[in-house]
Amino acid sequence: MAYTHDDQLAINTIRTLAVDAIAKAKSGHPGAPLGMAPVAHVLFSRILKFNPKNPQWLNRDRFVLSNGHGCMLLYGMLHLAGYAVSMEDIQHFRQIDSLTPGHPEANHTPGVEVTTGPLGQGIAKAVGLAMAEAHSAAVFNKGNLDVFSNYTYCFVGDGCLMEGVASEACSLAGHLQLGCLIVVTFCEDVLKRYEAYGWHTQTVADGNNDLPGIEAALRTAQKETSKPSIIALKTTIGYGSLLQGTSAVHGAALQADDIAQLKAKFGFDPHASFAVPQQAYDLYKAVAVHGAKAEEAWATLFENYAARYAREAADIKRRVAKELPAGWETHLPSFTPSASAPAVASRKMSENVLAAVADVVPELVGGSADLTTPNLTRWKDAVDFQAPASGLGSYAGRYIRYGVREHAMGAIMNGLGAYGTILPFAGTFLIFVSYAAPAVRLSALSCVRAIWVATHDSIGQGEDGATHQPIETLAHFRALPNCMVWRPADANETSAAYAAALSARKTPSIIVLTRQDLPPLAGTALSKASKGGYVLLEADKADLTLVSTGSEVALCVDTAAYLSDKHGLVVRIVSLPCFDVFDRQPRDYKLQVLPDGIPSLSVEVLATNGWERYTHEQFGLDRFGASAPYKDLYKKFDFTVQGVAKRALATVDFWKKMPGIVSPVNRAFNQNNLI
Amino acid sequence: MAYTHDDQLAINTIRTLAVDAIAKAKSGHPGAPLGMAPVAHVLFSRILKFNPKNPQWLNRDRFVLSNGHGCMLLYGMLHLAGYAVSMEDIQHFRQIDSLTPGHPEANHTPGVEVTTGPLGQGIAKAVGLAMAEAHSAAVFNKGNLDVFSNYTYCFVGDGCLMEGVASEACSLAGHLQLGCLIVVTFCEDVLKRYEAYGWHTQTVADGNNDLPGIEAALRTAQKETSKPSIIALKTTIGYGSLLQGTSAVHGAALQADDIAQLKAKFGFDPHASFAVPQQAYDLYKAVAVHGAKAEEAWATLFENYAARYAREAADIKRRVAKELPAGWETHLPSFTPSASAPAVASRKMSENVLAAVADVVPELVGGSADLTTPNLTRWKDAVDFQAPASGLGSYAGRYIRYGVREHAMGAIMNGLGAYGTILPFAGTFLIFVSYAAPAVRLSALSCVRAIWVATHDSIGQGEDGATHQPIETLAHFRALPNCMVWRPADANETSAAYAAALSARKTPSIIVLTRQDLPPLAGTALSKASKGGYVLLEADKADLTLVSTGSEVALCVDTAAYLSDKHGLVVRIVSLPCFDVFDRQPRDYKLQVLPDGIPSLSVEVLATNGWERYTHEQFGLDRFGASAPYKDLYKKFDFTVQGVAKRALATVDFWKKMPGIVSPVNRAFNQNNLI
Repeated sequence: MAYTHDDQLAINTIRTLAVDAIAKAKSGHPGAPLGMAPVAHVLFSRILKFNPKNPQWLNRDRFVLSNGHGCMLLYGMLHLAGYAVSMEDIQHFRQIDSLTPGHPEANHTPGVEVTTGPLGQGIAKAVGLAMAEAHSAAVFNKGNLDVFSNYTYCFVGDGCLMEGVASEACSLAGHLQLGCLIVVTFCEDVLKRYEAYGWHTQTVADGNNDLPGIEAALRTAQKETSKPSIIALKTTIGYGSLLQGTSAVHGAALQADDIAQLKAKFGFDPHASFAVPQQAYDLYKAVAVHGAKAEEAWATLFENYAARYAREAADIKRRVAKELPAGWETHLPSFTPSASAPAVASRKMSENVLAAVADVVPELVGGSADLTTPNLTRWKDAVDFQAPASGLGSYAGRYIRYGVREHAMGAIMNGLGAYGTILPFAGTFLIFVSYAAPAVRLSALSCVRAIWVATHDSIGQGEDGATHQPIETLAHFRALPNCMVWRPADANETSAAYAAALSARKTPSIIVLTRQDLPPLAGTALSKASKGGYVLLEADKADLTLVSTGSEVALCVDTAAYLSDKHGLVVRIVSLPCFDVFDRQPRDYKLQVLPDGIPSLSVEVLATNGWERYTHEQFGLDRFGASAPYKDLYKKFDFTVQGVAKRALATVDFWKKMPGIVSPVNRAFNQNNLI
Repeated sequence: MAYTHDDQLAINTIRTLAVDAIAKAKSGHPGAPLGMAPVAHVLFSRILKFNPKNPQWLNRDRFVLSNGHGCMLLYGMLHLAGYAVSMEDIQHFRQIDSLTPGHPEANHTPGVEVTTGPLGQGIAKAVGLAMAEAHSAAVFNKGNLDVFSNYTYCFVGDGCLMEGVASEACSLAGHLQLGCLIVVTFCEDVLKRYEAYGWHTQTVADGNNDLPGIEAALRTAQKETSKPSIIALKTTIGYGSLLQGTSAVHGAALQADDIAQLKAKFGFDPHASFAVPQQAYDLYKAVAVHGAKAEEAWATLFENYAARYAREAADIKRRVAKELPAGWETHLPSFTPSASAPAVASRKMSENVLAAVADVVPELVGGSADLTTPNLTRWKDAVDFQAPASGLGSYAGRYIRYGVREHAMGAIMNGLGAYGTILPFAGTFLIFVSYAAPAVRLSALSCVRAIWVATHDSIGQGEDGATHQPIETLAHFRALPNCMVWRPADANETSAAYAAALSARKTPSIIVLTRQDLPPLAGTALSKASKGGYVLLEADKADLTLVSTGSEVALCVDTAAYLSDKHGLVVRIVSLPCFDVFDRQPRDYKLQVLPDGIPSLSVEVLATNGWERYTHEQFGLDRFGASAPYKDLYKKFDFTVQGVAKRALATVDFWKKMPGIVSPVNRAFNQNNLI
């Protein structure tokens, strides 16, 4: 179908809307929308399969604007295309509580698939979305009933492609032969690199005007099913502005005279703002009708599918609703500890949980960044997620071999989680979760239920030494809003951590696990640990509360016995596997766990920062670790019964002399209980 | 010179030493040393310019083992080559307090240039070392007096090359045409990608045996002066082991029978451990003599240089000693604030400091990850660090255009700082320092004085929205050992931050700065701020202490006036720009700043985690931000005089009823004052 004047009008509408919104906000990035409007129009009007009336249609094509700073392009498209983004929303671009924030945020604006802006994250999420489609299609499609057949389209600028996370994700996408992924970029000099990654590459010489050429390239990319595609468009940044082609047009509103000449050049009234010609709306109305019909056809297909494959259809619906299978939690291992039970590493307990729930929770799809063996993340009989042609597995496989690509792994989890049918998890050493810090942050911000299986969680790591031993890592992620950090002390607490992580619909989790064996503990239970913190050992008229997590809880138990024996002290013990969950308990409960009148000492072989919220005194490791067998390290750093006892006695002596002992959780107000 | 039986003996010695040390430690990675011993031997015996008796010789070639888990290769080489790594050290591989930790650590083992192990960091540091050499040569070499002429060699495995940080660093190295950088790798399939980065590539087909071929490739790489070089060697992981060529030989000690057959195969006594044939020592003695002569020749050259260029020679010596120029600190801006002074953003204050010290501290070399304009990191008249052939600058330039490569920027700073003549700084938005978290950690661990200029430090960022507004970032880096985080409130505190950062010899700094303007403050001074925390406003019989940092200090001043006016409350104000420095003050001083008996409230628009160490109550932002003009955001989140006052009143009311008010810094013990 030939392109007409109306197409050009729609393109120029997208441009002037962006320019006007940015001018009104006095803030934003006009360069990208001006240059990218033509390809955006071709994609949305001719290629993209979507129904603006149902942004959650399962088999819609996904669109990711990786260069999220160009979001006025996206908001303009969503408005024109008929999504619930009104002209008023456009006019409140970047204003308080608007639908149109400064970068696109998922779970905030209808039609925005994933949160982008921090560079490189969007394209990596697009890889995740494409992997999710490939997996869902392989698992669910039957005969000619292709329930899942969507493409993932991604626009990406040179900034994103310079980021390491993009390199990691795109080299993995090439390896995985993700034919349903189509990327459009504006920098030509990357094509040789993408060829090396195993991608299909094309160039469109005039991305400003050659609409048929753009469409042809997109259709060619669709037909390339054995490789991801990248199309380099030669466009002019800030096209139409007096500053076009310069960096001055990248990140600041255009001047009034520049806007006036731009509008005149595009045939718009230089004095009118936020003008949308009726022809542009009409064009997109037709597109929306086409999209609604496509969804209807799919719905019919899905009905046929459900008639023949009721179990699968129900499974799809359940997954999309983020509901876990009924009774799944009964499969979580629980234990009645006995003193004669063998010592077990919590990474091994984690493996037991994964083995127990893998069959029951089929949406659980994950892997490791080249540390499968030490992470213990791969259950028996798992099939690798690999391109069928590779001979290494299949797209129906649920175990992802990420390679040494932690950051991409985190960002890809955000794409996998956003697709709707997958609950992603990923393993690496705790210290290397920091490689993915920006992706973990976006999981939390955009409410993706991603689960990190983070093993080797302290100096207990041992011989690998200081480079591999976390110190600050938990303080970091405990401070991240909407992120659960679990450091379980035994098998029951490990089950509690997974129970919380799997059932949290809008919160990512980091489950922190030991390499070294942990002795059995008495007094733990899944139900207790599920409160984030609880009294492991109660005592009347206690002299002290010891508070701890993970591998140090057993040390506290031994120290309490020693202090009783040798010093006649009465010691309570609190296990605090998840600060975030404990913080959300009622005040009374928290004060019951950490009461006034009793001094408290925390024991954790990590940075003490943040522990002052719960205890009066802290014993931790505010220095880097070292290389040696872990028992030698615990001794070196005084994490022994004697070392803890020494600090416990100092705590008791010191607080005896104080005028009063107020529990650290007894406070005038807190962030969860705002005044 | 032909290779003889002694060369093969030396190679096999390297192999058996590694195998024995790993077996004794029951821990380590034998695969890499077995496969890489030939190229290591060729490099150390024929190519590398070094003097084991002086590992600090300024013009030595730098060697980086990026796959740091193969460190027994490096320790074995250092031992053979005559560095101060004894046989006893080798035998204590990975043991407590040994010179031979599980991954190579700079500032720990003589001959280890940079800390490696976290994958991808080593090669990025190698890029930094090569940049430092190119810069030093361009600045100091005169006529035929090449004071700086060393190469940087780096061994790198496939794991490192999958990491995004390696992609970022290597694409920058290609752009910068760093001819003095020579990388040896063991994976062939990356060469096409490295060609795309602009590198010179070669392959050696038999990396196990073709010693002349390896040498020839290294010499060809030396001659390629306009591009960095990468040489792919086909080697066999675990060469000689029964498990050779399999992943089983990567990361676990070999079995006894495997070790015996391997030794027999290599002509060693299967029953002897840690055997070093005298011929191997003798071979390397000759190498060491050659190296010592090379250093002598260089010393003579340097004497001639010093005779003709006394100022430059003195400058080199001063830089290497990490001494700043005499009187440099008098150039730091200082201010006597007046109420009529204009409001200024602290990023602008930072620009003023950089402008003031740029000429005085010529070793200050840095740049930004594509945010030069908003970071305000480039002083007037700065010259860009670019390959001369690019026409964009020169290697003598001190301003680095990193591109959107935050992680590589952080890792490259570690290389720049390790070279000896450069004091590196780098700018980005605070939120994006998290992209470089693993590199920041290694700055701290290996004591590199790297300075982050981290602007846009909070919701004060404004319209860019939640994706760009830090919440958890300061809690993270404040918990990192040996890292100063400065959040200055005005120009005097900004000078104090730079004074500390520039003069810290072994500690990295993150200077956290606002985008938005800050009103002038009374009572600040560089000398006070240099203590990390101080009383900005003292008051007798105070009802409350408000404690704050950066942009919220002025808000506390206004709130104190309001509380006095409207509620008759007496309020003290404490500014706490750097927790880490304050923590190191004497207990008495800390208690003077934060005394017993007065309740305290902290005010900072970031995560509250960690503030409990200093205050009884915290007002912060334990949720994500939003997109709007910053004044609207401060209002939305209640960071107004009324919002702070409300919490201040709640604090005073609450603590009145408590039995006693113990200062949070009055504790039984702390990590700096261990019992």
